[in-house]
Amino acid sequence: MSTASIKAVVVGAAGYAGGELIRLLLQHPQAEICALVGHGNAGRPLAEVSPWFAGFLPAETATIEEFDIAKAAQADVAFLALPAGVSAETAAELLQRGVKVIDLGADFRFKDAAVYEQWYKAPHARPQLLPQACYGLPELWREEIRGCSLIGNPGCYPTSVQLALAPLLAAGLADLSQPVIADCKSGITGAGRKAEKHLLFCEANDSINPYGVAGHRHTPEIEQGLSRLAGEAASVLFTPHLTPMSRGILSTIYVRLRQPLPEDKLRALWQEFYADEYFVRLLPPEVWPHTKWVAGSNFCDINLKLDERTGLLVVCAAIDNIVKGAAGQAVQNMNIIFGLPEQTGLQQVPMMP
Amino acid sequence: MSTASIKAVVVGAAGYAGGELIRLLLQHPQAEICALVGHGNAGRPLAEVSPWFAGFLPAETATIEEFDIAKAAQADVAFLALPAGVSAETAAELLQRGVKVIDLGADFRFKDAAVYEQWYKAPHARPQLLPQACYGLPELWREEIRGCSLIGNPGCYPTSVQLALAPLLAAGLADLSQPVIADCKSGITGAGRKAEKHLLFCEANDSINPYGVAGHRHTPEIEQGLSRLAGEAASVLFTPHLTPMSRGILSTIYVRLRQPLPEDKLRALWQEFYADEYFVRLLPPEVWPHTKWVAGSNFCDINLKLDERTGLLVVCAAIDNIVKGAAGQAVQNMNIIFGLPEQTGLQQVPMMP
Amino acid sequence: MSTASIKAVVVGAAGYAGGELIRLLLQHPQAEICALVGHGNAGRPLAEVSPWFAGFLPAETATIEEFDIAKAAQADVAFLALPAGVSAETAAELLQRGVKVIDLGADFRFKDAAVYEQWYKAPHARPQLLPQACYGLPELWREEIRGCSLIGNPGCYPTSVQLALAPLLAAGLADLSQPVIADCKSGITGAGRKAEKHLLFCEANDSINPYGVAGHRHTPEIEQGLSRLAGEAASVLFTPHLTPMSRGILSTIYVRLRQPLPEDKLRALWQEFYADEYFVRLLPPEVWPHTKWVAGSNFCDINLKLDERTGLLVVCAAIDNIVKGAAGQAVQNMNIIFGLPEQTGLQQVPMMP
Amino acid sequence: MSTASIKAVVVGAAGYAGGELIRLLLQHPQAEICALVGHGNAGRPLAEVSPWFAGFLPAETATIEEFDIAKAAQADVAFLALPAGVSAETAAELLQRGVKVIDLGADFRFKDAAVYEQWYKAPHARPQLLPQACYGLPELWREEIRGCSLIGNPGCYPTSVQLALAPLLAAGLADLSQPVIADCKSGITGAGRKAEKHLLFCEANDSINPYGVAGHRHTPEIEQGLSRLAGEAASVLFTPHLTPMSRGILSTIYVRLRQPLPEDKLRALWQEFYADEYFVRLLPPEVWPHTKWVAGSNFCDINLKLDERTGLLVVCAAIDNIVKGAAGQAVQNMNIIFGLPEQTGLQQVPMMP
Repeated sequence: MSTASIKAVVVGAAGYAGGELIRLLLQHPQAEICALVGHGNAGRPLAEVSPWFAGFLPAETATIEEFDIAKAAQADVAFLALPAGVSAETAAELLQRGVKVIDLGADFRFKDAAVYEQWYKAPHARPQLLPQACYGLPELWREEIRGCSLIGNPGCYPTSVQLALAPLLAAGLADLSQPVIADCKSGITGAGRKAEKHLLFCEANDSINPYGVAGHRHTPEIEQGLSRLAGEAASVLFTPHLTPMSRGILSTIYVRLRQPLPEDKLRALWQEFYADEYFVRLLPPEVWPHTKWVAGSNFCDINLKLDERTGLLVVCAAIDNIVKGAAGQAVQNMNIIFGLPEQTGLQQVPMMP
Repeated sequence: MSTASIKAVVVGAAGYAGGELIRLLLQHPQAEICALVGHGNAGRPLAEVSPWFAGFLPAETATIEEFDIAKAAQADVAFLALPAGVSAETAAELLQRGVKVIDLGADFRFKDAAVYEQWYKAPHARPQLLPQACYGLPELWREEIRGCSLIGNPGCYPTSVQLALAPLLAAGLADLSQPVIADCKSGITGAGRKAEKHLLFCEANDSINPYGVAGHRHTPEIEQGLSRLAGEAASVLFTPHLTPMSRGILSTIYVRLRQPLPEDKLRALWQEFYADEYFVRLLPPEVWPHTKWVAGSNFCDINLKLDERTGLLVVCAAIDNIVKGAAGQAVQNMNIIFGLPEQTGLQQVPMMP
Repeated sequence: MSTASIKAVVVGAAGYAGGELIRLLLQHPQAEICALVGHGNAGRPLAEVSPWFAGFLPAETATIEEFDIAKAAQADVAFLALPAGVSAETAAELLQRGVKVIDLGADFRFKDAAVYEQWYKAPHARPQLLPQACYGLPELWREEIRGCSLIGNPGCYPTSVQLALAPLLAAGLADLSQPVIADCKSGITGAGRKAEKHLLFCEANDSINPYGVAGHRHTPEIEQGLSRLAGEAASVLFTPHLTPMSRGILSTIYVRLRQPLPEDKLRALWQEFYADEYFVRLLPPEVWPHTKWVAGSNFCDINLKLDERTGLLVVCAAIDNIVKGAAGQAVQNMNIIFGLPEQTGLQQVPMMP
Repeated sequence: MSTASIKAVVVGAAGYAGGELIRLLLQHPQAEICALVGHGNAGRPLAEVSPWFAGFLPAETATIEEFDIAKAAQADVAFLALPAGVSAETAAELLQRGVKVIDLGADFRFKDAAVYEQWYKAPHARPQLLPQACYGLPELWREEIRGCSLIGNPGCYPTSVQLALAPLLAAGLADLSQPVIADCKSGITGAGRKAEKHLLFCEANDSINPYGVAGHRHTPEIEQGLSRLAGEAASVLFTPHLTPMSRGILSTIYVRLRQPLPEDKLRALWQEFYADEYFVRLLPPEVWPHTKWVAGSNFCDINLKLDERTGLLVVCAAIDNIVKGAAGQAVQNMNIIFGLPEQTGLQQVPMMP
């Protein structure tokens, strides 16, 4: 184990993504948590807010604090798990002090502030930072991330959809004159750790429902990503669903091919595109991704099938929404930025059952 | 309670659909169970196989029996909840004795035996019966059902998809040159009461997965139904998903309109089409169906939204897969056949939570 | 349906117990809801707060209102599902106007106001009403209930424990020099429909925990009930657990016998005690109660076994906590008070799965 | 990472405990899997039987094999996750070849073969091995384990009950003239990966039930352990419950004290007894163990409270049944036997939510 550990501050430590960051950093051989920040829970020990962490943190970092730039400036990297819109100012302060920033919110995911402003219904707090921000989806944009100090960590749904379709789009084989349809199912951690009625056990248990139909804010992020991969404008109809499980996203994606392709050729596309990617697993034919099969891990499991009757391709991808869809991908980005092997601290075997 | 009760035999009494038939018939003011039939459990009291029925059945019908045509012939109606392919012969025998048949399997759902044979990979046992069979989706084909003695009770997924789209198709407003995409999520009762590994609690809990992608046998049933409603051939890409809940189907359906229509016009279509239908509820704008909101009831909850960006219409429908998707619809068909008000015995308030 | 319907007002209509009252009253052949009352949701249609009720209520009762004594006075009976302490004053007003009151809270469960005040940490608002209140556990105190206008509807846990032990205690066969241990597991509806963090799906899913150990307020209610049955003071150690399920209580109870008794004699005690009770089912030997087997019904399933090694008797009882443990029992009490057959409107078959 | 890795063979690789062993060994810095054995699945790749392991095993160990003593003899240690009774013969063969054996079944848990034979209803296959076997509960019997080659890995329920009570019993403060009552709730993995009807999702979801009341085979194991700790015979009434969750055991234990003790004295007992134990966490007063708070980890969370009204002490303990209750404890035993720090490879942060 290296003596030179990366010092990390976690902002938003009391939430689910924040907690997952803590879980992963605690198991990371070359990172250490130097402070936990959380507005609503400042002054409370983490183990009081999230008792499963009992015993893990030394006294000096065990308590959640208000954000203090002087203290945060001692970190090498800051992970921001904050509500949309709150991150940008914090990021600006941190960058000024030389702290690298990995933002799990949406503030730095868009190249174009106008798109952000249109969908997030608010002016962007620091549009001048956007040019230096990178979209942190390592399997697709690793080289850019390497030298970057400000990462817009991708949304959970967009991660799964982009990884699912990248090989096809990069090969120019998708017919993007038609919209891509992404029907996505998320575990309830996706909604955050908020005491809201519709997230109560008794409201959500044993039930599934769509929400944000034809209007969810991950839509432009998916479109931006797919368009960039394809080199042409992609239009996406994205429907998220609240699914009675704690974690996981399953995306079922429907896309038209430019021309018919035999299934083995198609599979070869994915196989080759992800040949060197540790975190992407193409499952064997007819073995379909199950969200629980990636639980707690940074994997993205993918499978696909061409429906010969309609000519549409169905691609399915499963991730753990708070690992590959949030905290795990953030740590993967940290590894890249700090020159570590990308899997460092991220080789958890999925926890099934 | 009327003195003239309908005598019903339930074949397949030990399964989930059979159990639900028993539950509904026990609460039906004008029906009575005269025999329970089940091959694998013959000789065992129902309350041993399904202990929640303890106390409900009188001694003479409390035990599951082998099918006996002489005894079954005393019934007015037989509900068949049998594996695909097994029903046809039993139905033939029953019809000969003057017993009306409501088959919950696929044997009598298709007008064309060839379609059945192609998808179910077996010759149809009694194709000569098909012309006299009716497809039992009352909201769409009530008049045919009325005089019919042999009902092919619709599949669970097809029920939800057809009810979701009927108003649009009947109005000729769908652009069927493009395939309809039906992304459907089912509770695990949909797979039946079989001791198979992938249906174990620990395999299915807290996880969602697609299955039978681009090949599920409900596809041709959906296509037949949509085509008939539209008066032209409809092509469907149907993807079912196993969802960690006991009951319920949520279908999220993507369809292209022939021409743009404002949302209020669209909503009016559904409103009018189902104005007199007790079992179909169009939810208010932005209130999306939750499967638990129809649990235990015969309702189909629907909502829809036009995605102006892609021009696609999203229609969502939720049913309880073993009520409106099986046993409840079967009882609804029984009510029609025997001239009872259609809601008789089917006015259960959904059991939520 | 009878022309002479009982008019009922439900106070606390937006909660889970209130919702269950509405569900049961809607299916009751001789009751009708004349008003829905709820403080926090006044002015909102019930179908907005609890969308599964869409279509069930006529316009004039569809909206939740603030409590208005003039309107409430038109009812024959009021069901109060209110927080502890709030009911007493409302009850007093209603009784004055001749409305019978069935209170689902704790205010009228205790004979002795001091016990209430000690455990509920507040003075009793109307102790002078206690002498005219009856404890509404019909299987045990039916005769008292019959002529009563003010019912203290039992708590969910106490219902299950008292029904489990009544035959033994009434026969004087329990050794009450030792405490009775009641280890009880409740579904999460038991905690009410409150937006609190520990009730979120992601906090409660896939997990079980005790709470209120050695201090839960149902303890004195259980003790009062057991003591009255036994004719001597019973002491109870009661431990509730939050269980990852929507509904249901399972109570596992450990009690010492005064003297050894063979198992068949013991079983006969329960068999005889409940011989005429529709809602209590003694399961066959070695078939243990499952909470789901009573879901949505007013049943209490019981089984027992003597542990010969320790001489302790284990009695298990399962109920649906919001039916037999709240709303169903309340309707059962209403039936008794108004002279209807006790099962009226309460013959729901359990909804399993 | 050490160059001298412990070579391990996992027998019973297709089950849940076997899978958990694989998960933990894959993350262990000083162990490597040299073979996977499984009778029913021999010849199939692990990633086919348990697809979540895709990508983790190198080709030479990726396939489950029939047990072959010659191959197994190359291992340093064998983990046996086999049905009761099957392990003893396999263990004998392995020990002869110098392979250390950690048996997750019951064959080597009892000092006295007669107790085993009475409860497991079969003669013990190798009683002559019992004297050299150690009961592998490290927090209690670490010193014995250290030099031992044959470990009887404790049962899941007994682990939780013994850890919960050890401080009290070791201090001689329990009044064992009265039976200890252990009311235990287990996740469904505890029943194994068997395709049985009562373990189906739809049978177990949203429901809790007791089983094996007054007769479960973990009873004598608990009694043996408690008696040894106390130095006198302890009698236990143990009631297991099937709880709708994948993992976890919560044990709620009721025990009488020899004499009243103030709560702080009691807490100090546990605090001191476990002061140096990494895997046991005494939670703060009134914070009760939640099974999910230890999910995926080797922790045992404990809390306790004296019920002053009855004089009984309530102790609650939560473990992950397939980690601390099976595979994790087995790895902990391996670490001890091979002279590694006990936490090696076992510092997983619980996966919550």
